[in-house]
Amino acid sequence: MSYPLRVKLVDVGPRDGLQNEKQLVPAAVKIELVHRLQAAGLKEIEVTSFVSPKWVPQMADNAEVMAGIARQPGVRYSVLTPNLKGFEAALLSKPDEIVVFGSASEAFSQKNINCSMAESIDRFAPVVAAAREAGIFVRGAMSCTVGCPYEGEIAPERVDYLAGLMKGIGVQHVGVADTIGVGTPLKVQRAVEATLKHFDINQVSGHFHDTYGQALANSLICLQMGVWQFDTSVAGLGGCPYAKGATGNVATEDVVYMLHGMGIETGIDLDQLINAGQFISDYLGRPSNSRAGKALFTKRLTS
Amino acid sequence: MSYPLRVKLVDVGPRDGLQNEKQLVPAAVKIELVHRLQAAGLKEIEVTSFVSPKWVPQMADNAEVMAGIARQPGVRYSVLTPNLKGFEAALLSKPDEIVVFGSASEAFSQKNINCSMAESIDRFAPVVAAAREAGIFVRGAMSCTVGCPYEGEIAPERVDYLAGLMKGIGVQHVGVADTIGVGTPLKVQRAVEATLKHFDINQVSGHFHDTYGQALANSLICLQMGVWQFDTSVAGLGGCPYAKGATGNVATEDVVYMLHGMGIETGIDLDQLINAGQFISDYLGRPSNSRAGKALFTKRLTS
Repeated sequence: MSYPLRVKLVDVGPRDGLQNEKQLVPAAVKIELVHRLQAAGLKEIEVTSFVSPKWVPQMADNAEVMAGIARQPGVRYSVLTPNLKGFEAALLSKPDEIVVFGSASEAFSQKNINCSMAESIDRFAPVVAAAREAGIFVRGAMSCTVGCPYEGEIAPERVDYLAGLMKGIGVQHVGVADTIGVGTPLKVQRAVEATLKHFDINQVSGHFHDTYGQALANSLICLQMGVWQFDTSVAGLGGCPYAKGATGNVATEDVVYMLHGMGIETGIDLDQLINAGQFISDYLGRPSNSRAGKALFTKRLTS
Repeated sequence: MSYPLRVKLVDVGPRDGLQNEKQLVPAAVKIELVHRLQAAGLKEIEVTSFVSPKWVPQMADNAEVMAGIARQPGVRYSVLTPNLKGFEAALLSKPDEIVVFGSASEAFSQKNINCSMAESIDRFAPVVAAAREAGIFVRGAMSCTVGCPYEGEIAPERVDYLAGLMKGIGVQHVGVADTIGVGTPLKVQRAVEATLKHFDINQVSGHFHDTYGQALANSLICLQMGVWQFDTSVAGLGGCPYAKGATGNVATEDVVYMLHGMGIETGIDLDQLINAGQFISDYLGRPSNSRAGKALFTKRLTS
């Protein structure tokens, strides 16, 4: 069994994480979080979303946050863009990468954005074209690739279909997301295999939620398939909107702990990462959702 | 990659779990927990320990608990026996299996029982002989096979050495335990490989702690090696004595969720298992440590 020598983690905490937290977090705190993440060695950070503040008030400060970051050379700053209007607003903030999205579940697509999977991807075509024209890298987030809160289990054929649609409009990289955390290793493997029909292994990342505690096992099976890019969220920021009180995004700390333990390089300083996680958990007034983060922080206090 | 078709889980919650909980739990509650575990389909349960009540007051009711269980055919009831005196007391309770133990760390052995690894195993020789004479199966729990709270990382050679000592005194099965949860997949793989020099794959089980969130990833790598027996603890009972407030034993619910998701049979009814976990968590007055347990319980409440 061979494993990648090096893994790249994209911390999605400031966007995917904080968007799903109940509390509104001030721009200054978000900026400080981004600064702490880049100080810890993260080379890509999903910073914010250029979505209507009517729908997502948590991200209303998108331009302010992007403007406030002291950018570090070699770090990429990505933003979510739900439509052309969002993309045009995002453009002013000079992101390195934009994220467009689609669901592998028709029911989720209908409930969430009131259109079919194909329609939702079609609508992104001008965004992708404009981004590529502007030299901005385009990542596609594929949600519900294993299970859907409305439809239940999702067949790999639906992932194949969605990945094909994403490829068709010029998306350059896709994330295979288990949005509700129901995936287990073999189901995740099949979702990734379906994606690999359209994208190269270097164009695919894993995005797992720890709602059922499965995220590291799912990451391990991906590593064994050669996947070397993952989305993670510092301190496990972001709950699960479909199971209140449950865990959402896998914690960056837990993934880094596993990778370093396996001798896989990440370029991340775990101690500094734990500080970043503790900073935002303290701000939110609750313990970190990272098991490794909590254990190492407790150890630090008692030693 | 092939996986076992069927996995056997040994729920160690009543013993290993409750022994490490601060609260004293009455015998009646322990008995009810065992009944709920067997109703959920567990085929082996580590019930109690015949250790001096001076050292482990939580297990002072060992004989009472063993006597109170309405035993179910096909279910095995095991007990921990730290010495010959404990074994003789245990014998009266007619266990199907006894558990002896040793550490792969010299420092841990010295600090914990004030003797060397070899001495500690030697002391168990008469216990093992007496048990086998009485037709009782002997399992050996090998602690600190990946890391030790005093020594740090443990080399696979120490596991090889300990497994050889266990084999030498007639132990019939060994559990490879990551007592402090610091293990990651490749380290665990090496510990299991060292054990397999002395024991057949059918004589080896994995025993993982989720302190750093790694238990399911470690279980997955074991499954890939052919290991099909694991110790788990309902609701993740049992904290980590070396990192206060941190998670201890991996939750049975999380492991069952993964196995069933992978199409691996366990004979366990996850719904009933969650009830068992909720029962003991409610008694202890705190949420379950199982992520799958919490997510499924929340889902049940809201659907």
